[in-house]
Amino acid sequence: MLQYFAPLAVLAAAIFVVCTLRRLLRFPEGEGKVLKIAKAIRSGANAYLSRQYRTVILIFAVVFVLLGGLALAKLVNPFIPFAFLTGGLYSGLAGFVGMKVATRANSRTALAASEGLNKGLRAAFSAGSIMGFTVVGLGLLDLSVWYFLLKYVFHLVDTDIGTNMLTFGMGASFMALFARIGGGIFTKAADVGADLVGKVEAGIPEDDERNPAVIADNVGDNVGDVAGMGADLYESYVGSIVSACALGAVAGIKNGLVLPLAMAGVGVLCSIVGTFFVKTGERADQRSLLNSLRRGTIVASVLAALAFLPLIWLGTGNPMLYLSVLCGLGAGVAVGYTTEYFTSDSYKPTRAVAESSNTGTATTIIEGLALGFRSTVLPVLIIGAAIIGSFLFAKGADGTAQQGLLGIALAAVGMLSTLGITLSTDAYGPIADNAGGIAQMAGLDESVRERTDALDSLGNTTAAMGKGFAIGSAALTSLALLVSFVEKTGLTGDSLNLTDPKVLTGLLVGAMLPMLFSAMTMSAVGRAASKIVVEVRRQFREIAGIMTGEGNPDYASCVDICTKAALHEMVAPAVAALIAPVLVGFFLGAGGLLGMLAGATATGFLLAVMMSNSGGAWDNAKKYVESGYGGGKGSQCHKATVVGDTVGDPFKDTSGPSINILIKLLSVVSITLSDLILAISLFK
Amino acid sequence: MLQYFAPLAVLAAAIFVVCTLRRLLRFPEGEGKVLKIAKAIRSGANAYLSRQYRTVILIFAVVFVLLGGLALAKLVNPFIPFAFLTGGLYSGLAGFVGMKVATRANSRTALAASEGLNKGLRAAFSAGSIMGFTVVGLGLLDLSVWYFLLKYVFHLVDTDIGTNMLTFGMGASFMALFARIGGGIFTKAADVGADLVGKVEAGIPEDDERNPAVIADNVGDNVGDVAGMGADLYESYVGSIVSACALGAVAGIKNGLVLPLAMAGVGVLCSIVGTFFVKTGERADQRSLLNSLRRGTIVASVLAALAFLPLIWLGTGNPMLYLSVLCGLGAGVAVGYTTEYFTSDSYKPTRAVAESSNTGTATTIIEGLALGFRSTVLPVLIIGAAIIGSFLFAKGADGTAQQGLLGIALAAVGMLSTLGITLSTDAYGPIADNAGGIAQMAGLDESVRERTDALDSLGNTTAAMGKGFAIGSAALTSLALLVSFVEKTGLTGDSLNLTDPKVLTGLLVGAMLPMLFSAMTMSAVGRAASKIVVEVRRQFREIAGIMTGEGNPDYASCVDICTKAALHEMVAPAVAALIAPVLVGFFLGAGGLLGMLAGATATGFLLAVMMSNSGGAWDNAKKYVESGYGGGKGSQCHKATVVGDTVGDPFKDTSGPSINILIKLLSVVSITLSDLILAISLFK
Repeated sequence: MLQYFAPLAVLAAAIFVVCTLRRLLRFPEGEGKVLKIAKAIRSGANAYLSRQYRTVILIFAVVFVLLGGLALAKLVNPFIPFAFLTGGLYSGLAGFVGMKVATRANSRTALAASEGLNKGLRAAFSAGSIMGFTVVGLGLLDLSVWYFLLKYVFHLVDTDIGTNMLTFGMGASFMALFARIGGGIFTKAADVGADLVGKVEAGIPEDDERNPAVIADNVGDNVGDVAGMGADLYESYVGSIVSACALGAVAGIKNGLVLPLAMAGVGVLCSIVGTFFVKTGERADQRSLLNSLRRGTIVASVLAALAFLPLIWLGTGNPMLYLSVLCGLGAGVAVGYTTEYFTSDSYKPTRAVAESSNTGTATTIIEGLALGFRSTVLPVLIIGAAIIGSFLFAKGADGTAQQGLLGIALAAVGMLSTLGITLSTDAYGPIADNAGGIAQMAGLDESVRERTDALDSLGNTTAAMGKGFAIGSAALTSLALLVSFVEKTGLTGDSLNLTDPKVLTGLLVGAMLPMLFSAMTMSAVGRAASKIVVEVRRQFREIAGIMTGEGNPDYASCVDICTKAALHEMVAPAVAALIAPVLVGFFLGAGGLLGMLAGATATGFLLAVMMSNSGGAWDNAKKYVESGYGGGKGSQCHKATVVGDTVGDPFKDTSGPSINILIKLLSVVSITLSDLILAISLFK
Repeated sequence: MLQYFAPLAVLAAAIFVVCTLRRLLRFPEGEGKVLKIAKAIRSGANAYLSRQYRTVILIFAVVFVLLGGLALAKLVNPFIPFAFLTGGLYSGLAGFVGMKVATRANSRTALAASEGLNKGLRAAFSAGSIMGFTVVGLGLLDLSVWYFLLKYVFHLVDTDIGTNMLTFGMGASFMALFARIGGGIFTKAADVGADLVGKVEAGIPEDDERNPAVIADNVGDNVGDVAGMGADLYESYVGSIVSACALGAVAGIKNGLVLPLAMAGVGVLCSIVGTFFVKTGERADQRSLLNSLRRGTIVASVLAALAFLPLIWLGTGNPMLYLSVLCGLGAGVAVGYTTEYFTSDSYKPTRAVAESSNTGTATTIIEGLALGFRSTVLPVLIIGAAIIGSFLFAKGADGTAQQGLLGIALAAVGMLSTLGITLSTDAYGPIADNAGGIAQMAGLDESVRERTDALDSLGNTTAAMGKGFAIGSAALTSLALLVSFVEKTGLTGDSLNLTDPKVLTGLLVGAMLPMLFSAMTMSAVGRAASKIVVEVRRQFREIAGIMTGEGNPDYASCVDICTKAALHEMVAPAVAALIAPVLVGFFLGAGGLLGMLAGATATGFLLAVMMSNSGGAWDNAKKYVESGYGGGKGSQCHKATVVGDTVGDPFKDTSGPSINILIKLLSVVSITLSDLILAISLFK
């Protein structure tokens, strides 16, 4: 009976999305300049995404053919090539829908905000929740269809279904990597380029229509922060569920395979209930809006926590697994709080970054980097405690290690079970940001921009919690995948031994991969931003009257530069992630590959946390200075924090999030291709 | 007979040091302003070092008493408290001698350089080689005395001697950490503080006597770059030898215990021969000076490589071990070349950083960080190949895994065997730098500064090789220590298993430690530098006529601020490194501790490489711009690279080098305290 929760949730999510979409479209879209700008952003985003998908489809086709060949050679399971396609398709679709909705919501949000803060929130949050529930709905749809297909059409046994589902994540992760890297490069190149010439050199405000890169910047918000995030979280969601399913199928407990699917389904239903608690009176201030958003998440989480107890107890007969899930939920909340502590300007760390800007740019950078490194301590301790706790609870006094490991995987599922609503509060931020840009460019009243800024900044605060869940679940899921890799390859004894030279070498290589990856994505942003800088400088120089508003900047050329750069730069890192496990497996054998996965997981997790928090702190330190500290806008302090924010942009929105995907993709590829890798390896 | 090589080398090193010292002291020390400045620097350095040692002695006393208590409780070996003291004493002495010589050599080098480039080189190189051979001489003296004591007075068997020697590294590593962190904070706080106000705000040149922080800056070169480096490399040297001795004693091959000592002894003798090849004609240009320095290192290395073959063959009867050593030597050279490639402005990466400064500070920082991350790839692949190669060679067709692991440790010994001369070429750089500062402040002829700059920049190039050896050997030594930890604790099976949750959690915690450590040291530099900035600004404001040269800056107050800050800030990170293994062992057991060591080694190695290379590249990108690229000194480009260089300062001279010590200290502490840790652990 547990297997019906997920389809039920898919249905509920679909109904919710349709209703919310209708409500969103009832908001007026605007006219005149507002509409013109919104359309320009929309067409830029559409153009980018369709070119991105064209590129990605080619690469998917190549990998599909390769996987097909391997399937014919019986080196991978025959379902895998097709599951790879559906995973990629749905992940891409999740991003696409999010972007479509966001580009329709931004002008609506701007206009709604002109009538009041609360109305603006409703428009932006509607769009955000469409994205949130599309992601979870599509994820559960994909998994449910495959589950029923494998179970009732192909009549596979549970353990085989688990192994198969595990590899479904590969398509989703691969697609997510393209979306995150491509979108991340686009958005940050445009953002950095626009800021460097516009704000720093020419001294015009952000989102000024005289800046030729301004439309590209706004397009970037949609293709990076919205579409990229959608594909990314689709991957996290599906990844956590399938890794738990695979461990559940072999743990020897009742309903082990379908329990994670059922938990996810229950989480979706609770999230939908939560959304109805996001509303305030017409005369709400910022504080009550924040409480309103938080109330939605808290209601959903508490409901889920309550519902999981009977679900797990009745479903598996083992109530201890419930305590493992609570470990995961608690850890997610705790990591979220550390994120908020380290990146909000209400607390000491970010204020210290702002203070260090008194002594110049160099100390701002040093302090921000140090903050990021320091901010890894608590998440590691929290996640470590969650790992040990969920393992021990699930194992119990007389359970097997496999049951304990299932506990870790279920903790990750618990964290992401309410993704529907946490993603809603995450995704509405960029939409409000974009609405502010449109308001600014269209010359709407100052108060509109103030309100959208307030919404955006609220979004940053609520998003911290969502980030905690995403980061924590990535670490736990990666560990679960590591275990599944060992199960699949049947490694034992010395090959698992941390003092084996091959394992140690693998560990070093694995620890290096997230760094190489960060270097590739950061450099890509730097290179693309330089191109934008050159182009914007050229337009300022060559187009007469651009500064007085008499000449028209050529927005399309900046969009085009970003598009080309993003597509060009996204391929190498993604393909590298696909090839690395094969190479390491060839040279170092399965033990070396295991070492690589462990090294990549540990270093990648930390580096992702560090980059995300450094970037967030620089961003908010800048806002803190802009709100008056150290001389406010235009002061030396402010200039230093602008540089910090610019350095932080690729940290928090390109490299950091990509690493979370990378570490899972490495694991999934290793599992999927393990038979091939073992067959060709130098060391058996 | 092999055991006599080391005492012989100690004798040779002592004679060499005495002769070289006499030659150095024959150079004129200068008079008037030169002497006055030199004395100010010397007394500042003396004052700092004596206060540093007073603080450290207290901490050593506490740890000695704790170890004594553990020895009485039979939880550690009775020799350990005393070995801890001698290790610390000799490590401190190595730094102290280096600093004493450097502060006597700097004015002599300045005056010698006024007579010609070659004469300047001879003065600086003499001082550098005194330091180099003091380090290796003291190291071998300590180890030899203990070896003969344990063997012939206490009549221990070889395996027990090996275990005992292993723990000798603890005192040396602990002392080195204090010296590196304290000295690193001192030097970089002064450097950053002096630059931020002097160069950036007041627009006066580097080493200008009107800058109140200028003497502190020069003192810092001596206590950080010289004394800190001396203690650091003493630790690396001793650590690589003892970890090989310990593995040699249990590997079941002839002379396994004394072979590493003998190799080190032979290396010292070859290095002394090498120094005689460092000389040029009177009319040498920069190119021929570089060749001259390189010739010395190459002669020493080739001689050592030749001498090792008969030594190993006749000593152990197993010529395959020789191939392992060659792997180590080859890897050291190769890593050195990658360091040079990534940090020299003759190659693309550093030039790309300089180019990125065209688009502002933010892109300079992004590109420099990306360079550092990217520069970890080759060292990992090289060291990985060396690990696998030296393991397979030493294991051979029918050897044991222990013999293979000995091969890895011997590779590290091979790398550092010629430390005598590589350290000479490393240590002379800061001396030349200091001489340049004196020349500038004393108003010597422009040409003197040019020559000392040329010497300094030569030193940077030759030092790249030395860094390669230091970094590579740290990684290999850490792996050897990891293996020794497993030997000592007798871990087997699941406790070593990479999928055990405790091991995985330990891995995460271990990977986090180098980051926490970097954060602590970077923030410390930032905080101390801010204090200097405030003080220098105050002096500029309050002391009349300071800018016109009529008022005298208060140099002593800046020295005092740096001293206090360094002493205050160095304690927490060092003590944290001592406590972390105990805590992790308590909560996660021996398996978790093993995971922690592996995680710390992998991430620490990479982070150290990254920080060292990012810092080096920013430094040289600045020099590249100063030599004319992008508008030269004073241009926007230059300002961006100055910020990069300032961020890089704590990277390459405080945080990066400290991490190399940290990862070994963690291992040595774990080994030394393993009985205690196992006794108190929650998980047995």
